Amino acid sequence: MSNPTTITAQPGTPFIDISREFEATPAQVFRAATDPDLIAQWLGPRELSTDVEEYDARPGGSYRYVNRDADGTEYRFRGVFHTVAKDECVVQTFEFEGAPGQISLETVTYTDLGGRTRMHTRSVFPSVEARDAMLASGMEHGVNDSYDKLAKLVEA
Amino acid sequence: MSNPTTITAQPGTPFIDISREFEATPAQVFRAATDPDLIAQWLGPRELSTDVEEYDARPGGSYRYVNRDADGTEYRFRGVFHTVAKDECVVQTFEFEGAPGQISLETVTYTDLGGRTRMHTRSVFPSVEARDAMLASGMEHGVNDSYDKLAKLVEA
Repeated sequence: MSNPTTITAQPGTPFIDISREFEATPAQVFRAATDPDLIAQWLGPRELSTDVEEYDARPGGSYRYVNRDADGTEYRFRGVFHTVAKDECVVQTFEFEGAPGQISLETVTYTDLGGRTRMHTRSVFPSVEARDAMLASGMEHGVNDSYDKLAKLVEA
Repeated sequence: MSNPTTITAQPGTPFIDISREFEATPAQVFRAATDPDLIAQWLGPRELSTDVEEYDARPGGSYRYVNRDADGTEYRFRGVFHTVAKDECVVQTFEFEGAPGQISLETVTYTDLGGRTRMHTRSVFPSVEARDAMLASGMEHGVNDSYDKLAKLVEA
């Protein structure tokens, strides 16, 4: 029985909070979330492939990845890293290039629960409308699939 | 008589909006806001010096500058650029290293008013509390000084 992923988005705010506990250490979860070869194994909805083109997880580094469906349709994402504190915290920008200009700032924290780990992401958007558009895009499906795959990877 | 700088921060939101019109073209204002030698001439409160250590205004680039008072006390700032669209828009992170972890995302837009330019910055913080702390820091003084100096520079 896997742990649940909680997605919280209070009406009228520009925030989305995503929380998940993993049966693995912060070091294990952090590595899976910052190593390009490992990211390719879990990031994105199940029905899409993930090609990590760049993932330079250091302050000032950039990342870029693409999800592709069976027809070859591409969904491109990119961002830059502001903070990378090993096993503790990452602050990065996030943009879905299919909705250009709606850039959010993500703060990802890894909390040690004694061998277990809570991974929490707060995303903040430049407007409530941009946040609502992200919610309406079906991101919940991708997040749930991604975190279930990440759990399988780090809990194996 | 110089144009006013408007700072808007609705209670209970994580946003700060700063708007100013300049008697100069978007190209002139954009250059003054992205060229490190020019930035050093206007960014920061009047009573502090500004040393631009890095200002690599391109997607994935970083910036870093320091304000110093007469006693040598330093106020350090840094961030990374997500978007740099010449004469139009910049999206960047912003951190005052004296309040580490309170990173905001700034969207700066340059609107052509027919030879004149409206420069608008929306900052969004990871929480309302972080936004309120920034407002309480006295940033208004620094913003007003900076924009008055920028106006003198581009309107000369």
